[in-house]
Amino acid sequence: MSGPAPAAPVAVSRFMDAQIEMAHGAGGKATRRLINGLIAPLLMGGTTTLGDAAMAEIGGAELALTADSFVVRPLQFPGGSIGELAVNGTVNDLAVAGARPHTLLVTLVLEAGLRTEILEREMHAMAAAARRAGVAIAGGDTKVVEHGHADGMYVTTAGIGVKDRRASLSAAAVRPGDRILLSGYIGDHGCTVLLARGGIELDASLRSDTRSLWPMVDRLLDAVGPAMRWMRDPTRGGVATALNELAADTDLSIAIQDDRVPVRDEVRGVCELLGLDPLHIANEGQLLAVVSPEAAEAALAVLRHVDESATIIGEVRAAPARTVVAESTYGGARVIDMLVGDPLPRIC
Amino acid sequence: MSGPAPAAPVAVSRFMDAQIEMAHGAGGKATRRLINGLIAPLLMGGTTTLGDAAMAEIGGAELALTADSFVVRPLQFPGGSIGELAVNGTVNDLAVAGARPHTLLVTLVLEAGLRTEILEREMHAMAAAARRAGVAIAGGDTKVVEHGHADGMYVTTAGIGVKDRRASLSAAAVRPGDRILLSGYIGDHGCTVLLARGGIELDASLRSDTRSLWPMVDRLLDAVGPAMRWMRDPTRGGVATALNELAADTDLSIAIQDDRVPVRDEVRGVCELLGLDPLHIANEGQLLAVVSPEAAEAALAVLRHVDESATIIGEVRAAPARTVVAESTYGGARVIDMLVGDPLPRIC
Repeated sequence: MSGPAPAAPVAVSRFMDAQIEMAHGAGGKATRRLINGLIAPLLMGGTTTLGDAAMAEIGGAELALTADSFVVRPLQFPGGSIGELAVNGTVNDLAVAGARPHTLLVTLVLEAGLRTEILEREMHAMAAAARRAGVAIAGGDTKVVEHGHADGMYVTTAGIGVKDRRASLSAAAVRPGDRILLSGYIGDHGCTVLLARGGIELDASLRSDTRSLWPMVDRLLDAVGPAMRWMRDPTRGGVATALNELAADTDLSIAIQDDRVPVRDEVRGVCELLGLDPLHIANEGQLLAVVSPEAAEAALAVLRHVDESATIIGEVRAAPARTVVAESTYGGARVIDMLVGDPLPRIC
Repeated sequence: MSGPAPAAPVAVSRFMDAQIEMAHGAGGKATRRLINGLIAPLLMGGTTTLGDAAMAEIGGAELALTADSFVVRPLQFPGGSIGELAVNGTVNDLAVAGARPHTLLVTLVLEAGLRTEILEREMHAMAAAARRAGVAIAGGDTKVVEHGHADGMYVTTAGIGVKDRRASLSAAAVRPGDRILLSGYIGDHGCTVLLARGGIELDASLRSDTRSLWPMVDRLLDAVGPAMRWMRDPTRGGVATALNELAADTDLSIAIQDDRVPVRDEVRGVCELLGLDPLHIANEGQLLAVVSPEAAEAALAVLRHVDESATIIGEVRAAPARTVVAESTYGGARVIDMLVGDPLPRIC
């Protein structure tokens, strides 16, 4: 391909890996290097905060825009399926940007040989999830690839939301003393998908936590809108990765109390077996929020109205800058890094 | 997946095939059956016109929305590559809906093992195409699948455009006597990709016609805006399929003169070799337009300013309804059907 260089200033590519590896899709450090070292500088002329929706004024409307591809294996698992994930994942990216989800576009890459009943099941799942989330599906596209590719189906959803006037979110507004709220149990989605693949002998009744976060966000904005600083749904890379991005984007420190983070025994079991930290496991229906200290209890009450397991897991501090620290009840502390490598590939 | 049924009225599925086949992605009859017999009723509560962007009012703005996945093999071919197609294809879907292309979102499904230089080349191609088309790339997502899947990369682009006030397009406005305009040579893209795969002994200097149609549409709207009835970029399924959709959507007849349709000798050669009709071959930079008779010559002059090979290929008639007829110079006539089967898989 020849042609003139893009108009936007292009940073020198810092992505030095010779080829793409699974870890580049895991949502952690390697993904950040790929996106900010190659894709974002070339396509967008700068870096980007992973997982955020873009805000844009188009035709006089203040919109949030986001798109995600879903390649989860297997297509169905306890508590959800690829179609439901594809709707909720995109809806949640809009919600945590402080935008009311409005319209989705859906494209499908189908594998030749896919049974029609599976496609039909997923279309029903998407329609039901869209109805629950209050969004319209306006259009899309379907491609078919040869048998042996695409593992049945890949789904891409693009979402358009309308910026909510109650929201004034910005990492730049985060201050030491702000509280970190978490909406509920973590790691359920990642561990559920892993167990659904078989091969691990563990008797667990885990279900994916996939759900639309908009009802929760809507109530939060109503109750404590101006006190909300930052929101994120910690999917790929888990809570640890989202908090590390917050620390990096704010130049501040994030301190969490290990025993405050809600983790089910089954998730702990899977993680111990595999040598993983539940903080690195993907969620599909959890909300992380930074709220000013005086509004924290009111915000927690709102979260608990939707999910009893919601809790304040920590606070923002001035130092050590750009670092996430987990403190134990016994006074110990450990630095929590972003996800490195890809222990759980194709989780969403 | 369980859950309540979607709120929208769901037509009884008329899609009776037991499994997905390559032809369901070819853009012709089988695609139409899949979309209108299963996907659109379930996701959108109705049927949809293939290839059209959806029009929606969001946050007070009148927007056009579209999304396409690109799975072309090989990734690069004379005249273009997957990245350039992914930008131009989505830009063109907006343009032919009478909307000024504004913003794109890009998602990538990458195959583990993809060489970074290929990814970098395609990111450059996308950036350059976006710059030429005057659109911003606002965000996106990257997933990685195991080696052996996704043929290097699949690209999905979602596009948002702003409805242009000069445009009042509607199949319902098409009348007998309206002229059918075509912007240039057909079949170049499909034949180029086919030849790029190798295996056919033919010495051709064909190049894909991929380009942004917005400059052409912009000038047309300026010159004859109110006289424009309908536009389409005839991609998968070719000119024949687009005109059959027009005939079906209007309950009218489309008559074209075979010798007026610009086809290069090389495209004719490939088509004769494979028993295909150039009218069924995919294009990526051609515009089909229906214009009122009194504005047809002015519209043609605009098209010829951009592409000398533009021509008036036929007209709309009252009968035979829902039929496309190609008339030869010798007085013969043949009915042109939609594409059936998938002679050229994964062309975009």
